[in-house]
Amino acid sequence: MKRFFILIMFFFISFGGAAFGDISKERWGTSSLMVIVERTAGSVIVIDSSQHRFLGRVGGLGNLIHATVKFSNNGRYAYVIARDATVSKIDLLTLKLVKKVKAGLDSVGGVMTQDGKYIALSNYVPGEVRILDADTLETVKQIPAIREYPDGNKIQSRVVGVLDAPGNLLIFSLMDADAVWVVDAGKKDFPVIKKFLDVGKTPYDALVTPDGRYYLAGFLNSNWMGLLDTWELKEVKQILTQRDEQTASDVPLWKIPHLKGWAIAGDLAVLPALKKEWALVYNNKTWEWVKNVPLEGTALYTVAGPDGRYIWVDLVGKNGDLIQVIDMKTQKVIKTLNPGKGATHPQFTAKGRNVYISLMDEDKVVVYDANTFEKIKEFKAKTPSGIFSTERVYKFGM
Amino acid sequence: MKRFFILIMFFFISFGGAAFGDISKERWGTSSLMVIVERTAGSVIVIDSSQHRFLGRVGGLGNLIHATVKFSNNGRYAYVIARDATVSKIDLLTLKLVKKVKAGLDSVGGVMTQDGKYIALSNYVPGEVRILDADTLETVKQIPAIREYPDGNKIQSRVVGVLDAPGNLLIFSLMDADAVWVVDAGKKDFPVIKKFLDVGKTPYDALVTPDGRYYLAGFLNSNWMGLLDTWELKEVKQILTQRDEQTASDVPLWKIPHLKGWAIAGDLAVLPALKKEWALVYNNKTWEWVKNVPLEGTALYTVAGPDGRYIWVDLVGKNGDLIQVIDMKTQKVIKTLNPGKGATHPQFTAKGRNVYISLMDEDKVVVYDANTFEKIKEFKAKTPSGIFSTERVYKFGM
Repeated sequence: MKRFFILIMFFFISFGGAAFGDISKERWGTSSLMVIVERTAGSVIVIDSSQHRFLGRVGGLGNLIHATVKFSNNGRYAYVIARDATVSKIDLLTLKLVKKVKAGLDSVGGVMTQDGKYIALSNYVPGEVRILDADTLETVKQIPAIREYPDGNKIQSRVVGVLDAPGNLLIFSLMDADAVWVVDAGKKDFPVIKKFLDVGKTPYDALVTPDGRYYLAGFLNSNWMGLLDTWELKEVKQILTQRDEQTASDVPLWKIPHLKGWAIAGDLAVLPALKKEWALVYNNKTWEWVKNVPLEGTALYTVAGPDGRYIWVDLVGKNGDLIQVIDMKTQKVIKTLNPGKGATHPQFTAKGRNVYISLMDEDKVVVYDANTFEKIKEFKAKTPSGIFSTERVYKFGM
Repeated sequence: MKRFFILIMFFFISFGGAAFGDISKERWGTSSLMVIVERTAGSVIVIDSSQHRFLGRVGGLGNLIHATVKFSNNGRYAYVIARDATVSKIDLLTLKLVKKVKAGLDSVGGVMTQDGKYIALSNYVPGEVRILDADTLETVKQIPAIREYPDGNKIQSRVVGVLDAPGNLLIFSLMDADAVWVVDAGKKDFPVIKKFLDVGKTPYDALVTPDGRYYLAGFLNSNWMGLLDTWELKEVKQILTQRDEQTASDVPLWKIPHLKGWAIAGDLAVLPALKKEWALVYNNKTWEWVKNVPLEGTALYTVAGPDGRYIWVDLVGKNGDLIQVIDMKTQKVIKTLNPGKGATHPQFTAKGRNVYISLMDEDKVVVYDANTFEKIKEFKAKTPSGIFSTERVYKFGM
């Protein structure tokens, strides 16, 4: 009998709850997963957005007040990059933390290389791009962001906006050295192949267009954006950002808008305007200003659905609980939603049927039908913030 | 001892080979799977393209001489639609056939609705759109493609090019009745909400642009294509297809080019030209002809990478073993590859790092590095043809 008991125990330990309804032993596809950051809890929750089904929570990820999530090419692993440069690798099939490393002291984000082999981090401290092997999370390269001036002075700059681009490139900006650098991630030892200097004052973030064609840097202290054509790699062109004489609003800017939140919709780009109560519409071929769309507050994220028809705008500060929807057919707000307190980070599901929104100050995630604008589902979550879809596997700069 | 033996057997049966290296018990993400049709064997093989790893084969799928593959939103299930209207649902995590139904007598393809709930088939016989529940594969609706003429005459037409579009629409063409119909798949009972008549003679296939904005129908017997703006649903505009006086080639057209293979790259569309030895370049905003790109044979598929930089062109007939690559920067062929006999169906991996190609007459699938054009891997396969990536989960019209 004792032997029988030991045997039973052995099989339970070996096979876990496989046959006993434990969700961690169930199987699911990874193509419609939403990984949602619980900022104060230091955890993420994982939802299958094809069925709006809560799968589980993974904790112990460090300080996630500012965090971003990347994915392995096969969708199996999520990489959570925390502000303190902790990188956590999560198995999305078992919902287990499989590896955690400290890859610097202060990091503002990162990206998966085009080939899926490496994660590159934008580090503030030390000022560098740090490249990790996506399998092992071992550091394979540190690229110090040191600019040497003609007078011999050297500055090691904070790095922002490291993004991947076609040709297996990595492009990033030097916040304290006003530069944009290009690395060839397909070559041995990750050489810096281009340095564009004095492109604008204090770059703070960047985006690449969904096709990887253009790298666009935002500047804190210049009245333009910087545009680099990744097919040409010739120059960082100036794109003026303030085209009209409307007065500045008095809304305090709580955070710097993330450029990755900018919407590219067909021929147009819809951008949040710093400190203004409108969205800026640009032609994304000529990068000429088209118009302003008045909003009820300052936009933090402007998110386009996959069809480019509607832009869901996340307001911050005044009316921060609202989400406004711009119809790109008329280029006007056609819907103002009030999902709840601290509504933020709208994220579309595959082909744009639904939109997930975090209610940071209500401990909920809500789901809308993107065609009818009706709320169809809600989930409990602990101070949820960023929502990251596994669709990012296919997207440059994500 | 006997009880011990029974217990061991019980656990082996319950848990299969989980701990013993049986690949069917392993786990993988579904975001980089390639499902490749083995046309004469009536099977598909499944490869994880993130590691170029063969996962397995699923057989018993009927006649796959002409077949297409759709995916569930979560990437877990593949639906193989055979020419005889057999629809097979495959679990991509276990590589098992989980359901097979006969959904007509003769079918040329189908599509997953925007909401992921239904598969709609373009049936020749009977002439209809047939809508299946994606979970159960039960028929939930048949929409007979019957056009009634003013003289009282009725024709039940073959249906081609059923595609999904934003707003949860289904759009399809009536081959024998020269019409394009629109169905609202979000409404009860799937009403036909628009019928465009006499749009061109004998529509044979269609595409939607990647953003779902335009539905483009090809006609066998009209010298134009038909363009429907899915935001407006107002008219099917005529887009002329023959803009110059070059003489027709004498290459026999073996098959009708599938419009889904047409490349949309930035502002340009690159299309195979029926019976000609060039690719047609159009502006995809104005749909005006831009130029012809000379090829060494007739194009069957023109496939754009995710960055729109290179178009991989699959030739058919003369020089059918060649794949030519057009660089959209110069709009010229910059590379001619000779992968092997019957090279066809180039398919990009996530973010365009690699290209999979079937060698139909060499029983192989080969993999190229899309940046260096070097062959990096090959797999055995039985007369492979269509290659379908799970990226299609996110794409309209796929």
